[in-house]
Order: sequence, then structure tokens, then C-alpha cells
Amino acid sequence: MAEVSGPLQLSEVQAAVEVAAGRAAGTVLLTNVQVVNVITGEVEPGPVLLAGRLIAGVGPDYAQAKARQVLDLNGGLVVPGFVDGHVHLESALVEPREYARAVVPRGVTTVVWDPHEWANVVGTTAFEVAREATASLPLNVYLTASSCVSASPLETAGARLDPEDLEQAMGHGHVVGLGELMNYPGVVAGDPREIEKAWRADRLGKPVDGHAPLLTGRDLQAYVAAGIGSDHECLQVEEAREKLRLGMMIFIREGSAVRNLADLLPLVTPAVKDRFCLVTDDKHPHDLVREGGVDFAVRKAVQLGLDLPTAVRMATLNTCQFFGLRRRGAVVPGYWADLAVLAPDTLECQVVFRAGRLVARDGQLLVDTFVPTDARLLNTVRLPDVPLERLQMADPGGAARVIGVVPGQIVTRSLTMAPTVKDGCVVADPDRDLAKLVVMERHGRRGGIGVGLVQGLGLKRGAIASTVAHDAHNVIVAGVNDADILAAAQAVARTGGGFAAVADGKLVAGLALPVAGLMSQHTLPEVVEGLDRLEEAVKVLGVTMPAPFMTLSFLALSVIPALKLTDQGLVDPTTGRLVGLLAD
Amino acid sequence: MAEVSGPLQLSEVQAAVEVAAGRAAGTVLLTNVQVVNVITGEVEPGPVLLAGRLIAGVGPDYAQAKARQVLDLNGGLVVPGFVDGHVHLESALVEPREYARAVVPRGVTTVVWDPHEWANVVGTTAFEVAREATASLPLNVYLTASSCVSASPLETAGARLDPEDLEQAMGHGHVVGLGELMNYPGVVAGDPREIEKAWRADRLGKPVDGHAPLLTGRDLQAYVAAGIGSDHECLQVEEAREKLRLGMMIFIREGSAVRNLADLLPLVTPAVKDRFCLVTDDKHPHDLVREGGVDFAVRKAVQLGLDLPTAVRMATLNTCQFFGLRRRGAVVPGYWADLAVLAPDTLECQVVFRAGRLVARDGQLLVDTFVPTDARLLNTVRLPDVPLERLQMADPGGAARVIGVVPGQIVTRSLTMAPTVKDGCVVADPDRDLAKLVVMERHGRRGGIGVGLVQGLGLKRGAIASTVAHDAHNVIVAGVNDADILAAAQAVARTGGGFAAVADGKLVAGLALPVAGLMSQHTLPEVVEGLDRLEEAVKVLGVTMPAPFMTLSFLALSVIPALKLTDQGLVDPTTGRLVGLLAD
Repeated sequence: MAEVSGPLQLSEVQAAVEVAAGRAAGTVLLTNVQVVNVITGEVEPGPVLLAGRLIAGVGPDYAQAKARQVLDLNGGLVVPGFVDGHVHLESALVEPREYARAVVPRGVTTVVWDPHEWANVVGTTAFEVAREATASLPLNVYLTASSCVSASPLETAGARLDPEDLEQAMGHGHVVGLGELMNYPGVVAGDPREIEKAWRADRLGKPVDGHAPLLTGRDLQAYVAAGIGSDHECLQVEEAREKLRLGMMIFIREGSAVRNLADLLPLVTPAVKDRFCLVTDDKHPHDLVREGGVDFAVRKAVQLGLDLPTAVRMATLNTCQFFGLRRRGAVVPGYWADLAVLAPDTLECQVVFRAGRLVARDGQLLVDTFVPTDARLLNTVRLPDVPLERLQMADPGGAARVIGVVPGQIVTRSLTMAPTVKDGCVVADPDRDLAKLVVMERHGRRGGIGVGLVQGLGLKRGAIASTVAHDAHNVIVAGVNDADILAAAQAVARTGGGFAAVADGKLVAGLALPVAGLMSQHTLPEVVEGLDRLEEAVKVLGVTMPAPFMTLSFLALSVIPALKLTDQGLVDPTTGRLVGLLAD
Repeated sequence: MAEVSGPLQLSEVQAAVEVAAGRAAGTVLLTNVQVVNVITGEVEPGPVLLAGRLIAGVGPDYAQAKARQVLDLNGGLVVPGFVDGHVHLESALVEPREYARAVVPRGVTTVVWDPHEWANVVGTTAFEVAREATASLPLNVYLTASSCVSASPLETAGARLDPEDLEQAMGHGHVVGLGELMNYPGVVAGDPREIEKAWRADRLGKPVDGHAPLLTGRDLQAYVAAGIGSDHECLQVEEAREKLRLGMMIFIREGSAVRNLADLLPLVTPAVKDRFCLVTDDKHPHDLVREGGVDFAVRKAVQLGLDLPTAVRMATLNTCQFFGLRRRGAVVPGYWADLAVLAPDTLECQVVFRAGRLVARDGQLLVDTFVPTDARLLNTVRLPDVPLERLQMADPGGAARVIGVVPGQIVTRSLTMAPTVKDGCVVADPDRDLAKLVVMERHGRRGGIGVGLVQGLGLKRGAIASTVAHDAHNVIVAGVNDADILAAAQAVARTGGGFAAVADGKLVAGLALPVAGLMSQHTLPEVVEGLDRLEEAVKVLGVTMPAPFMTLSFLALSVIPALKLTDQGLVDPTTGRLVGLLAD
């Protein structure tokens, strides 16, 4: 049967009926397998018989079935292809084609991608481009419409998505919901435009994904009352239990920076096993290579003591039910033949079928994933001419607010320090590990430049810059002198975005991320190597913390405590207000 | 807050958020209650606070909440309004307005109605009329598009619904799926038009309800592979377990004629409690009055030992999830305020809220349900002029096939008996309890008349007739002489349909069912009384079995073994062929 892409055809269903009834040979027969039934929680005997893109039959009724291809799988466990219910592919720093290369051989056949970072750069174009960039991949890529672009009014992103824009995006079949409604303070406070986003999604019959860290009591109920159906921000069992009781699907996140699985797993009991989904949210390049995607969470859940069928169910059936992904998430007749076969001892993935086609074996992808980069994602870094004087900070005349770095975390501390002043201007002071921090709007919209101080990066010389700067993804630079700061900003702008380290006006090292200023066009292993090289190189500037560019990228995230810097200036996220350099 | 009908408005969601957050007073506060949480399986403390048509908040956070109306419910159990996942309202012999009067005070707030009987009479008009006849009721009435009209090619119904017609019907939001795909032999055999019906439903994102009694093995897998998602025909645990494993939702039927709950309940374990729905399928007038609707199944499940939250879940959340009924099926913020409050000891329903409005209390409906009968359902019995000779049966010249009645069952036996012959024609023979059976097409389509013999009705004199005659609902008459047979047929035709008993050319008793020839325009108690009177009256004809007109109504059902009669003649349902009077 020829590969068919696109919607299920009547002829395919007819073929599946013929094969299931035993009147026609199947396309593939998986023999010597056990089948994980996520519906009943049982492990059943095989085989599994496919008819084109669909599963036709399961179990001993098909022991003698004929098929064009017969695969003996050595006692392997057939599971539904894994589904990641909430992921920002952008965190991988590679294009979707490379993400697919990384996770499909591990058994991930479906992701629900909230292209929130792309949308902050290119607006609704992100949903179009994401569709086109993934349609030919051996991975089902569904989208959620990114609900909070921009994340706050205190930063200038490349676009603003209004409820009407989101409704339009959700009108497309592959956009299966509204993405994490992060502005929970807005919803709880009754902001009509935020509530409208959820209402419009519901009107279209699409679920609303939530994001409400530590919200509790009546405020949480108000958030849920707005029609928000899930949450992936639970840190502890008590928090998750409260949300569970109120009807939220609990997305258990096991990503790179945030790993909640071990803490939340005690809540997953037989009584409520249908109410959890495993998600990654963000997986960084090293972890993606080392661990994989949501498949890692499944294995970890089993290692932590959860029974296999339930662990698999949380990354398959439950997620498909929440997002209304029809004919997906179980190994039963008539469902899409998206399957992984796992080694029964290690649970390592041996073979992967996507829509009935063998797409990976022994960790290797067997199909081409090349998709050219969409031109609309290139040349997005439009840095204005910045005279050096724009980076100056006048002496506030008292103690200054300083962003205190917490390595590996997205929160910061809000410090108060006496600034070092030279010629009437505040300057960096490497002896106190005080650097200057600059955020330059780079979307060609307003050209705002915010300047502040940051403590704890370890910077002794030069400057480091990034166009990955959550969530607006402006250019963020930390440096000890203005010339190097400007040079570093220009260095990342020259490559269409990326990371760069500069000392004495010269580029020390860099990693080009020309795709929306967020992703490389290279392979994942190349990006991992490039990051390693870059991290090694910045040591000569004094920066020795792990993943310094990731730490840098969160210093602009204006919705997370305690003190951040955007292109509009210093932001106190707890009050949602701009603040001056002079501490109160 | 004024009553609003129709889709949820943004302002209503905003109001719910305000109330949940504690900034505004609610509309109703239910105090001194416990709340059945069907999501977690727990029983939690109240109160429950409503904001217009929505639930705003649940639990002790709202102990001090303000509301326009406060109801102390004396320790009552708040449950989501019950949902009947598969019902043919027509079996109640009363119009939907009367059905609602019967079940709403018992806590049923939603039904998924397959108007299969109406559709056999008036075609796709049934879906339109059903919508209009129910839109103003205090009951959410969703429809499934009746998939098998007519039930077989061996009978002439009032309409034939093609896959295209069904797709058009399913294009409407209130038509939430394809109704029971009864032609499972057709699906399993690969009939492309049958498979197309399921495929078109799936393409629209709507589930397909199944009907596959005793189907097993590869044939069952073929049926499931066609995309059919549920089944309500399971009789025994083993049958249901096989379907469950293949991914079907198991609709446990507890109706009037068929009651499967006690047999299937052992299969409902915590591991699979999300995979069952309670349904009634058919509830006859007496049972509806005596027992209620799907609420009866909930109480019975508890009496049989099931925990209350699971029993309630099977008639609420599970059904809403299967049919994609958003914001329904649980008592959580943001969901529709469809609630029943049950006495904690007897589980009898005390009060019922529908969309936030108190609609019933202590078994009494508090709102008007009057809806005029739609003219398109009236005058549907178009009986042609039938000369007496058309009822004659020539001597077959050997033993005859005879339909053997099995009282209270829809199956019949296929008997072989020597016919009694007079003047070269086969005649009834009351001494051997042999009556003549006649089916006359009454939709004005072809005017077919089938004639045969039936044994076991007890008829000694006259004739009994019905326009309820599954599934084509032609006129069916059993009688001992042709004149009374014709008179009985004319009697039901004169009332626009119904039941009638005739002896010696005179009407003995009757019950008019002028709505599509299937329903009375009277109240349910009046219909129960009319049926009792009719049943008493037919005793003078010798008919003493209970519910003789129901038995009569199934003698034309050409898809159920072993021998039936349609307007086209005698049918052997096991082969799907017309057969002659002469036995092989």
C-alpha cells in the first residue's frame, strides 16, 4: 500500500475491515510480541496486524494471519506511540525536523507543540510555518495556539496575539487547543480579554491548557471556572490534588530544568489514573540526546514504581482523550498504527511505526526528515543602530536594584547594592561579580533598550549575548563594558540570532541560531557540540556555571519573580510594574 | 440573572469567575450538602455555589459565600445531573415533553436520543423536529443520527437515510454522533455504504455508537476497525470484556425489555471504571412511571454493591466524555449547573437544577414543558385501499412456516406446521392458537402487503393492530378473520396510528398514537391508564399475555431471528432473505 498522507480515506477503513475479518492479507504482522492495553491495564498476547495506516487486529485471532511483511520482535512490548502533551520544541534549539530525528526513534510519535517562542517572534505566522515544517515528518505534530503573546505588557515582543487571532488559529484542525494560559493573575482578576481567549477556545470545542503555579483556593476555582482544563505547573502532591479534584487534567512535567515526576507520582493511583498526562514542556539539547523526550518520563515512572500500562497510558490515551485526538492512544483495531515496540527488560525502544510505516529501528530513523527552513523565520533580528551612550546608566544617587542570578533556575533574587559609579555613570564591577545587563528590542517595533545590573554570572571580561530571551526574545547581553556589550549584540545580530561571547571587541565563540533567532539549522549533535564548545570558551571570560546562556535567557522573563529586565526597563514581576534603578 | 438559553456567553463565564473569586454574590448556594466527585471517586464537603447557568465554586472555600438564594439541603448528595447515553424516547409512547416530565424530577438532565423510530417514519425531518420539540425543555436533548433507516432492505420504511443524509444531520452541533450501527453483518462483510456511514461520522469528529450482539473474534475486530466506538448489546461479562479490550465503551443497558446491569456489573472494576456508561435504550410507559429513566440504573448499581461515585460516574462523566459534551458530567467550577441532590439514605432525588435553575423538587417538575406537536409528525399513516382478497393466502401445498411468539422477547421461533386450509386458502385456526399476521406498508411509498401465520398470541376472536411495528413501523395486524383484520388496520389508521382491538367488525378498545403513529399526545399517566384498559379489553379476544401490543410490534423486526413478517413478506433474518410460506 502506497504511503498516503492526509486525512483517513474511506478506502483505508474498508481495507482495515477486510484485513481484520480475515478476507485480505495485512501489510505488516508484528509477531512474538506482547501488547500493552492502556484501556484495561493488562498486558496481552499478540500479534498485531496492520492494514496500511491503521491497526486492523490484535491478539491470538491473528496468529495465522497473512501479511506482506512479518516482523518477529523477540518478545517485545507493543505500546501506542508516545504522545507529549505539552512541549515547546524551540527549547531544543534545533528545527522540528531535528527534534523528530531525536524523539521518533525513542517511540514518540505525537507531540502537542505550543510554539510560544516562535509566536513571540513572528506572531500567527508561527502556526502556519509550524504546520508546513512538520507535515512531512514521521511525527504527528499538533499545535496549541499560544495564548500569552506577549507574556506581559512590560516587554516588546515581535507580535501581539489577540483573542480574535487565537480563534482564527484554532479554526484549523491541527491546532487542537489553546496553549497554556499563563496570565493566571489576569484570569483570576477577571481581565475580560484573558477570559475571552478561553471562552473562544471552548466555543470551538477545543480544550484550554492552563499554567497556574501555586494557585489555590478561590483564586484557583476562579481560574478553573474560566474553562481551563489542565495544568502542568504542579510542584507538590497537595497542589496537584486540589487541581485534580476541581477537574483539571494534571500534566506531570519531566523536562530539563523542571522535573516534577518524582514528587507527583504518589498521586497517581488506580482511582484517578485517567487524569494525568506526561509532558516535557522544555527539553534542552543535551537532555534530548541523553534522555529523549516524553519517553524518558515513561521509563522513569516505571523505575519509580508505577506499573507499565499506567505509565504508558499517561503518555498516550489520556493525552489523546484530553485533546480529542481521534483513533490515537491505544493498540486497538481502527486506530492509527502509531506504535513503538519496547525491549521487555530495559524498555528501550526497538522499532517504531508511524501510520503503519516502519520509521525507526534500534535508535535510528529510517526515513528522511529534511524540510527546508521557512524564509519567514529567517532574518528576524532587526537590531537598530545603537549609539554607545544609549547603554549608559546615570548614578541613581543611592542603593541600586540588582538582579541576583540563581544558577539553573528561572527565578531571580532582587538584590539591593551600592552601585559602582564612574564619571557619573553606573558601571560593571567584576570584583563584586556585578555586570551590566542590557535588553535591546530586536523585532523592529519600538527599539526600546533596557539597562540594569546583574550579580552572579561570574563575568570578569567582555560580554555574552543571546537572542533567546524569554518570552519576547529580544537581544539580551551581559557585559563588563559597553563596547563589548554592543559588539556581542552585533555579533548575534549578524548571524540572524544566536549566542555569542566577545572580549576586547573580538568574538571569542558563538552559536548561530538563525531560525527566528531561536534555532540552529544544524543537527542536534552539532548543536550539542557547539554548546559545549561555547560553554568551554566563555570560561575565559570567567563564566563557569553550567548552561550560562540558558540562565541569561531567563533574565528577561518578566512574569517570574523577583526582578527582571526587559527592553522597557527593570520589572518587578510580583507587582507587574516597571521599577527604577534606585532601590526604595 | 435572567434565564438565557443557547450557547454559553462570555459574560456568563466572566460572572462565574467573579463569583468564584469571591468578588460577586452567586445566584444560588446549596448548603448542608455533600458533593460526589466523579473525577476522584470521593465524596467531599460542600457547599456548591452557582453563578447563573454555571457552577462557580465547590467546597468549604465557599462556606461564607453570598448568593441571591440559599438552599439548605439537609445533608443531601449533590451529583451531576444524570445522562442517558442511548435512548429511543419513542418507546415511552409519549412526546418528549412528557418524557422530560417523567425523568427530570428524578435527576436526569441530559439524554442522547437516537430518534430511530421517528426517522423510520419521517426521515431526516426527525432530527429537525426532535431539536425543535426539545429545545425549550428542562432537559438537554442531544441526538445521534439514526444509522440504519431502514433496518433492512426487506422492509419498506417511510424513508431511507444514506451516508450523505447522515453526514448532513451530523453537521449540526446537537447531533453528537452516529446512532447504533445495527447492520453489523453489513459492516463485517465490508458493505462500503455501511462503513462509509462510520467514516463520515469520524471525519466530522463525532463518535460512532455500535450495536453488535454476540459478535466476537475477527468479526468483532472488523466491526471495531470500522471506527465504531461503543456497544450496548452485551449480555454477559465475557462478551463485554472482549469488547472492552478492543477499546469499545461498554454501554450497560438497563431498559424495560432488556436488563443487563446485574450480569455486567462484575466487570466494572476500579481499573476500567472510565469505560462504562449506563443507558436505558428503551423504557416503556409503565416502567418509566414506576422506575424512572437512567436514574434507576444508578440506584440499582449501588444496590448491587457498586460504590456511589462510580455508579454516578457511569451515568455522567463517562458518557459526556464519550460524546464530547463539554463542561458537563461533573460538579466542578465552570461546568454547567446541571445538578441533582439525592437523599443520602434512599438516593431518591430531592431537587434538580438544570442550567442553574431549580426545575424540580420532591418529584415535581416546577417548570412548564408544553411544546405543541409538530404538524410534520401528524397524519403519517397513509393506508391504501386494501381489498379483502389481498389478505388471502393460497394453500402452499405442504407444511407452512409459522412465526412462533416468545412472550416478552423480540426473538421469535420459526415453526413448521400443517396449515388449516379452507376453500383453497390458508386460514387462522384459533384451536391451535394460529392467527393470521398481516403487515401493510403505510408510508404511502409502495403499498406492499405481507401475509403469514403466527402462533402463540392466544387470539380467539377478532384482530389486534398496531402502527408501532419495528423498525419500519408499518401497520401490523394479527387476527382470526380477514374482515376484522382489515377493520383493525382501518381503526388504527383513523386515529393517525396507534393500537386497536376489533371483534365482529367493531372496535373493542384502542389507544391513539397520532404522533408519527408512535406516540400519544396525552400525558404519561393517561397513556399508562390507556394501556391498562386496552390490555384488559383484549382479554375478551383471548389475549392474556402481558404487553401484547409490544409483542406484536416486534413481529415485523426483520433483523432479529428467527422468522419475521414485513410488508414484503416472510423474512428469515438469519439469512437476510425473503422466504415463502411453504416450509423447506
